[in-house]
Amino acid sequence: MPNLKLTLEYDGTEFHGFQRQPARGGLRTVQGELERCFSRLLRETIKVIGAGRTDAGVHATGQVVSFRTSRPIPAARLPKVLNGALPADVQVQNCEEVEDGFHARRDARSRTYRYTVIERERPSPLLGRYALIVPGRLDAAEMGRAARPLAGRHDFRAFQGGGSETKSTERRLMRLDCARKGRTVTITAEADSFLYQMVRIMVGALLAVARGELGQEDLLAALADGDRRRLPGPAPACGLCLVQVSY
Amino acid sequence: MPNLKLTLEYDGTEFHGFQRQPARGGLRTVQGELERCFSRLLRETIKVIGAGRTDAGVHATGQVVSFRTSRPIPAARLPKVLNGALPADVQVQNCEEVEDGFHARRDARSRTYRYTVIERERPSPLLGRYALIVPGRLDAAEMGRAARPLAGRHDFRAFQGGGSETKSTERRLMRLDCARKGRTVTITAEADSFLYQMVRIMVGALLAVARGELGQEDLLAALADGDRRRLPGPAPACGLCLVQVSY
Repeated sequence: MPNLKLTLEYDGTEFHGFQRQPARGGLRTVQGELERCFSRLLRETIKVIGAGRTDAGVHATGQVVSFRTSRPIPAARLPKVLNGALPADVQVQNCEEVEDGFHARRDARSRTYRYTVIERERPSPLLGRYALIVPGRLDAAEMGRAARPLAGRHDFRAFQGGGSETKSTERRLMRLDCARKGRTVTITAEADSFLYQMVRIMVGALLAVARGELGQEDLLAALADGDRRRLPGPAPACGLCLVQVSY
Repeated sequence: MPNLKLTLEYDGTEFHGFQRQPARGGLRTVQGELERCFSRLLRETIKVIGAGRTDAGVHATGQVVSFRTSRPIPAARLPKVLNGALPADVQVQNCEEVEDGFHARRDARSRTYRYTVIERERPSPLLGRYALIVPGRLDAAEMGRAARPLAGRHDFRAFQGGGSETKSTERRLMRLDCARKGRTVTITAEADSFLYQMVRIMVGALLAVARGELGQEDLLAALADGDRRRLPGPAPACGLCLVQVSY
């Protein structure tokens, strides 16, 4: 039974996150839409495995999912066929057949997220769909300096949102940097995997640094004692995008 | 009674165009939302005059409207107050008090629209909200050459969508050019005013030129004899944005 790997782009605004919601009458999710469309199209029950469980409102240009089908459709033809059945806010970008053992979540070596902040006096209906709009100017260099010591293998439990249950809160953060281009500040984070809301809590903390409300020492203290209360709330979901999953 | 001039940005996706629809139970329009919110907020009936009647699905970053109110709110405070009452997909960018005789539509000297086309193999949920996605490569230089003779004062009736009634179909097109940046082709059109669907019909014709289905001679013939049937249908609304109104 062929095992397929798909790369997906989606606008998370109208989804209650990636993960399927239990039972009927549930909320609209990316996984739910994929499984519903693929099952109908391929006329068999399709179960999809996603690499990253993006939250409600979070976007993706490089989400990866894998699934098995007994239908002998060539992988090269699948994107067009699937896209015709999928809604406009989630579309397949690439499809390839992979070895039988491939598992989109377990085999992923790292996930890369990008958070976009735009400095602008007034809210922007066009830009604000995919970015956080903030008035005034951010000190991106200072944010970058504060971010640096977070990189590496640490216990990130202070950077985990409430209500999640994970065996270990240790993660390897390979990259966390801030870059400015004009009035846009982009925060890029890559890790083996992320805790629940971890990127948005890191971004929220860095924005507090940019406003002078927190210093690097506060981030270090949170890392050292794991106290969530040292850090502000997560940055809004609209600015976040899963851009790449590496295998 | 103060006369106010507002500059607006909106995401046209969820609007059935700018213009108010008659009676109750009507469709959601930009003008309808503005008048409903402003009337409620200012506690008097507000009538809004718009510079450009954008179609369903067309966006704006520089739409201008004017309205009168008897409420003595300083213009500088209004954007924040109005934005709090407006939905997220239409937001005020600027507000100033103007002379009593100012009329957003009649006094406009020109309107500038921008149409965005992105070359991309697959549909893009993120980029496709504000651009037309086309597979393959467009010859932007050839489009620009074909566009050149349209500039100037002409009878543009071949470039007018059906169902509109206008006294004159003569317009002065001050600018129509095509620019490429990477895989994005931008068509910018400026005119004293535009006929119904005129920009999108011009863009549709230029895209046909880029595909080799039409030549400059076809555009010239349409201009000369006014025959709408010489030209293809209008390009989709999603790629179009009203970027500036000049006074």
